[in-house]
Amino acid sequence: MKDKKRYGGDLIVEMQFEEIKDILQELIESKNFFKAAQALSELAAVEVAELLEELVDNPAEILIIFRLLPKDFSAEVFAFLDPEQQESVAIAVSDAELKHIISELAFDDKIDFFEEMPANLVTKMLTLTNSQERKLVNQFLNYPESSAGSLMTIEFLELSEDMTVKEAISHIRNVGEDMETIYTIFVKSKDRKLAGVLSLRELVVANEDKIIKDIYHDNVIYAYTTDDQEEVAEMFKRYDFITLPVVDNEKRLVGIITVDDILDVVDVENTEDFHKMAGILPTDEEYGKTSIFLEAKSRFVWLLILMLGATFTGSIIQHYEDVLLAVVVLSSFIPMLMDTAGNAGAQSSTVVIRSLSLGTVDVKDFLIIVWKEFRVSLIVGVALSVINYLRIIWLLRMDAMVGLVVSLTLFLVILMAKTLGGVLPVIAKVVGIDPAVMASPLITTIVDTLALIAYFQIATQLLNI
Amino acid sequence: MKDKKRYGGDLIVEMQFEEIKDILQELIESKNFFKAAQALSELAAVEVAELLEELVDNPAEILIIFRLLPKDFSAEVFAFLDPEQQESVAIAVSDAELKHIISELAFDDKIDFFEEMPANLVTKMLTLTNSQERKLVNQFLNYPESSAGSLMTIEFLELSEDMTVKEAISHIRNVGEDMETIYTIFVKSKDRKLAGVLSLRELVVANEDKIIKDIYHDNVIYAYTTDDQEEVAEMFKRYDFITLPVVDNEKRLVGIITVDDILDVVDVENTEDFHKMAGILPTDEEYGKTSIFLEAKSRFVWLLILMLGATFTGSIIQHYEDVLLAVVVLSSFIPMLMDTAGNAGAQSSTVVIRSLSLGTVDVKDFLIIVWKEFRVSLIVGVALSVINYLRIIWLLRMDAMVGLVVSLTLFLVILMAKTLGGVLPVIAKVVGIDPAVMASPLITTIVDTLALIAYFQIATQLLNI
Repeated sequence: MKDKKRYGGDLIVEMQFEEIKDILQELIESKNFFKAAQALSELAAVEVAELLEELVDNPAEILIIFRLLPKDFSAEVFAFLDPEQQESVAIAVSDAELKHIISELAFDDKIDFFEEMPANLVTKMLTLTNSQERKLVNQFLNYPESSAGSLMTIEFLELSEDMTVKEAISHIRNVGEDMETIYTIFVKSKDRKLAGVLSLRELVVANEDKIIKDIYHDNVIYAYTTDDQEEVAEMFKRYDFITLPVVDNEKRLVGIITVDDILDVVDVENTEDFHKMAGILPTDEEYGKTSIFLEAKSRFVWLLILMLGATFTGSIIQHYEDVLLAVVVLSSFIPMLMDTAGNAGAQSSTVVIRSLSLGTVDVKDFLIIVWKEFRVSLIVGVALSVINYLRIIWLLRMDAMVGLVVSLTLFLVILMAKTLGGVLPVIAKVVGIDPAVMASPLITTIVDTLALIAYFQIATQLLNI
Repeated sequence: MKDKKRYGGDLIVEMQFEEIKDILQELIESKNFFKAAQALSELAAVEVAELLEELVDNPAEILIIFRLLPKDFSAEVFAFLDPEQQESVAIAVSDAELKHIISELAFDDKIDFFEEMPANLVTKMLTLTNSQERKLVNQFLNYPESSAGSLMTIEFLELSEDMTVKEAISHIRNVGEDMETIYTIFVKSKDRKLAGVLSLRELVVANEDKIIKDIYHDNVIYAYTTDDQEEVAEMFKRYDFITLPVVDNEKRLVGIITVDDILDVVDVENTEDFHKMAGILPTDEEYGKTSIFLEAKSRFVWLLILMLGATFTGSIIQHYEDVLLAVVVLSSFIPMLMDTAGNAGAQSSTVVIRSLSLGTVDVKDFLIIVWKEFRVSLIVGVALSVINYLRIIWLLRMDAMVGLVVSLTLFLVILMAKTLGGVLPVIAKVVGIDPAVMASPLITTIVDTLALIAYFQIATQLLNI
């Protein structure tokens, strides 16, 4: 994908990203850091950070290039570096440089950075900030992880109700430079509560002498600092927001969340769901960065529960030992029946879990889901059973009665697996368990057990054992 | 979640969403549509659309309320209605009203709407638009689904290089009202190619007499109309964009994509991955809206492939029939071994597939993945095998040799499943297959086969059968 996008600029015109990378690699290898920094400053900050991480192994060299970048740009690049590289840069630069970087970072980037650094470095950096900022940083570091408070930034525009449009515009001219966005402007009432919202567009076209009170919108939608980030993401999706105000318990505006941070939240939340649905406990870290012990721990718990759960299936087989001894060929279909049961159940539970999480179906759609899964499983079950029957008597040339036992079981098992797979996630949600738990692994264990019981019961009846 | 957000407004002040819903329900049941419409007009358009869908079954009543809403607001609400309701409204209103709705819809919403409507209605609606717009709509309807072209809208601001700042600002005052966003402004060169970008903020603070040519940024990042929406979403995530320009083959700006549409794309792409990883073919429709035949079809294909794949496991069991007859108790551990193999493999493949799709690991990390999964599986494998061994000899009071056979197999199977689960998605990516195919269902079938072979081989050796 990377190689398709092109870039403009004086040094790098209409060049593909991979070409730029090659040129930079040469410049860095030949220690032509000045020219490298010059070329880098034509790129977007995130690209520079990516290239530094990829091309430079040596912390000393990163520092050289970093220092050659335009000063404001280097702080921007810093925000995109990996925590390890941020740390090595922060340790290597002078106090004055570090102070400059910290002061230039957007407030939410600053908090992210402080959160990732070791305690002694944080202490040192806090001495480089003024006491007011120190207080704010400490407050933000205390918001629970994945809360709205931990996502927000403080660089927002707030106007008083009784300002005129003219005063408001001149205020924005003065302070707008440092804001995360100036396009959404919030209005506070006299008691300093969030009162409303106004777009820059509306402010600019309004008559200069009007009072803000008369032009702002008072139906403003907001989040609390303690709201979960998943809820916040839902609000962005529902209302197509670019910016969302965050208030404290007294309904005072304390921060804003912008949509670019929400895209990351959506990725993190989805990864969590993917992992949960594969029976992995959440780890909070990227795959490449977890220790193997943490990774092993996150996988062990569910494997153990499911292994012990499989004791049931084992004891069912033991219970019907004589059936297996009487018609030995029956055992060869156990894997196929178990796998198909698991797969059919996993399909249904995945669809329903995902729909629940997107909000496209709800608990009250319970009967609709049961009825739909039942009918889908009828179609799929009949089709697969017929194919399976023909396979057994024509290809495997086995007894027709064995074919009937296996295919009838297969049909019932698909019916059961799909209906349970559709219903169990909803039940989980009703009783307050995360529906994602009812994904493939657990569903498989449950329907495997049922599949074996059905199999042996049908065999006993039809084969007169 | 819904009940936590509060709303302002004259009629509805500081009320919870569920309370608002109750009030509206009463108003609608008592046919007090005027008051209902008045209350609705205090809400966000998306909320009105949701409430109309939830509270009103009768198309005639929707139409009454719809007509009572402020005219511009009703077009906004219309954009958020379900296609079925859009259709019933579009059929019921007069031509003049329909023309007004169509003309008020943002261009991207208009295209979405046309795409969902039946052909005869589209034809009728096209006659209500002027010829220039008709041409544009037809062009947009032809962009491939899930391409950048199908996501973009045409309401963007474009300036010529040689305008002055003053001219530019007065131009924006004139046309800004109809734009999707006025905060990101694009600049075209004399040959009408996309030349650069400028923020409204920069334009406003610039000297009035400056020429645009001298202040815009020429390193602009863009997409082509034919780029896949997944690629576009990646660009938004990487660069924290709010707006992305889209160009045609001649590099002429033909549209812009805004980040609110990207949040939907991310959801759709993730749902597709969830489904693929559960062996479901993509359907393009929400769960509640697919026909049962389409749903059955999307699930049948993989179930069939996997069922036929399970033939191998069956024939392995048949091959070792005499082993099973000699030590019957061995068959009772087959489900546990198969389930654990499948679960262990699914965990690894899920983690790796997700990391590949987020770009946090890449094909070149192949050896790192193998080595990591190998070590993780050693830890998990040893722990589970020991627990399993103790369970067999203490709890189940079985022969120590049987315990050894089962636990040794379990250990090897976890090693194999986790390593293969980590490696196969990467191999899939290298040979150009979607890694998501290597998720739970297929991995399970593969490792089940290997697990059975290992089991019978170890049993034959250790039990001297």
